[in-house]
Amino acid sequence: MTKRLMIFEKIALIGAGLIGSSIAYASRRANLAKHIAAYIPRDTTRARAAKAGFADSLHAGIAPAVDGADLVVLATPIGSFAELSRECAPHLMAGAILTDVGSVKAAVIRDVAPNLLPEVHFIPGHPVAGTERSGPESGFAELFDGRWCILTPQPGTDPQAIAKLKEFWRRCGSDVEIMDAKHHDLVLAITSHVPHLIAYNIVGTAADLETVTQSEVIKYSASGFRDFTRIAASDPTMWRDIFLNNRDAVLEMLGRFNEDLAALQRAVRWGDGDALFNLFTRTRAIRRSIIEAGQDTPEPDFGRPSRITQRKR
Amino acid sequence: MTKRLMIFEKIALIGAGLIGSSIAYASRRANLAKHIAAYIPRDTTRARAAKAGFADSLHAGIAPAVDGADLVVLATPIGSFAELSRECAPHLMAGAILTDVGSVKAAVIRDVAPNLLPEVHFIPGHPVAGTERSGPESGFAELFDGRWCILTPQPGTDPQAIAKLKEFWRRCGSDVEIMDAKHHDLVLAITSHVPHLIAYNIVGTAADLETVTQSEVIKYSASGFRDFTRIAASDPTMWRDIFLNNRDAVLEMLGRFNEDLAALQRAVRWGDGDALFNLFTRTRAIRRSIIEAGQDTPEPDFGRPSRITQRKR
Repeated sequence: MTKRLMIFEKIALIGAGLIGSSIAYASRRANLAKHIAAYIPRDTTRARAAKAGFADSLHAGIAPAVDGADLVVLATPIGSFAELSRECAPHLMAGAILTDVGSVKAAVIRDVAPNLLPEVHFIPGHPVAGTERSGPESGFAELFDGRWCILTPQPGTDPQAIAKLKEFWRRCGSDVEIMDAKHHDLVLAITSHVPHLIAYNIVGTAADLETVTQSEVIKYSASGFRDFTRIAASDPTMWRDIFLNNRDAVLEMLGRFNEDLAALQRAVRWGDGDALFNLFTRTRAIRRSIIEAGQDTPEPDFGRPSRITQRKR
Repeated sequence: MTKRLMIFEKIALIGAGLIGSSIAYASRRANLAKHIAAYIPRDTTRARAAKAGFADSLHAGIAPAVDGADLVVLATPIGSFAELSRECAPHLMAGAILTDVGSVKAAVIRDVAPNLLPEVHFIPGHPVAGTERSGPESGFAELFDGRWCILTPQPGTDPQAIAKLKEFWRRCGSDVEIMDAKHHDLVLAITSHVPHLIAYNIVGTAADLETVTQSEVIKYSASGFRDFTRIAASDPTMWRDIFLNNRDAVLEMLGRFNEDLAALQRAVRWGDGDALFNLFTRTRAIRRSIIEAGQDTPEPDFGRPSRITQRKR
């Protein structure tokens, strides 16, 4: 019955938007900690978090939030990690695990590791889950169910601390993978960062056209465009920080994307139907694999409702 | 009570995949025709259509399918329209409306109009609706609900025939817009064709990497990539034909996209956080407008279920 044991005495969330609040809900669901504290410096955001009710205590200062915590989770945009880790470092308990949920890992190690005392177990992490929503109202307990969480501990990290954090994420619903930070950043560049960049880009392109009006773009978005707008509605600060901190991998993957797009553009220009057909057939198989791996719904159109809202006519 | 009147005696569907079969279901739902015929030359596909049961009669030959039909709908990939319109032209009833559901309109007019006798009302159409599925099993009555249908009649087309077809699409659940064919092709290039092209492209890029394995791409696809794979699972023949037949507009919009992406790439390379943040903020507003216009669900993540399937562990 070891699965029933609590894992942590006190979890301190540094920031509590979509991911932080979801960690709180998932921890409560599985009874993973006695106390969940959250450090939210801005008054209005802290009030919203109080209303949502996912934390046992909310703090305007970082010291009381992390005091006595055996798990501390950095859950703000990654550009703030250097400063936040400096601020909380002197207040961390010996033996505490410090982790994060950032979408880039090498830069986080660069920014956080030098600030910590050796008595703290630093285990960078990335739950590969999310929605386009942000803020303390957007979390839910099921966010991590069936998704992967990648941990990128540096060599020499205490294996027991790693095992404890793995167990924590498993009981939050995730599968856990251990990966090298640099490799993580390359994998996420192609599965997440470049897809977001091109989604943001095409939505920007469409908004700027002078030959097609914005209202036409909106009216006829169900033909494909609307899918991209969901991703392009993600949190701007979070995504700015990701691109600023995973530059090399993003540029490398973007180079590949551009090379392939140039070839595809050429196929369109020269009317090479076979090249188009072959690519379009090959990409179908990837979709099937994702569905078989339980990483997307088999329902057509993501299971979207057909008539979405009652509009005035 | 004019809304209760049938509009057509007999609808002939030339091809019946996702769109054709959905027209049949929507027509039945609103009682729009006495008889729905479908021309499906391939035996196996015709058998599948028979099993689905959306048509009153199924035909291996085009002549009996269109015989006596006052509405004929070309609903195959657009590359086949020239030949199909030539084949059915001699059998069309005087006064019949011939329309289509193709995603490109100028090329369809080029391919179809010269084959028709003047007694037939040719009104090109494009219901802006669909899913990634194809085939006669994939249709459903609600597909067009709340979506737009664009008609692109040439100057001089009989206004009564246009009114009749508009009424037909309205009662299938659509809003109807009249548009110039060339403008349609430009609008759809940015809202649909280029989005599909870049989705196909990134899925291809990801599949070809040697530094990131295909299994990693699949495992971590929930971080953004999986959204693109839905679009990239669309019917290859249909999409090949779209790109072969809307070349100029696609190349123009792709040129814009590439220009903007080059600027964005430069912002990533030089660490221009403000440029990134500004774009990422601007694109959020477009998403909101699409939701307000009833063209996408306000639910986070398109309303996808969190845990998608029970996987073996």
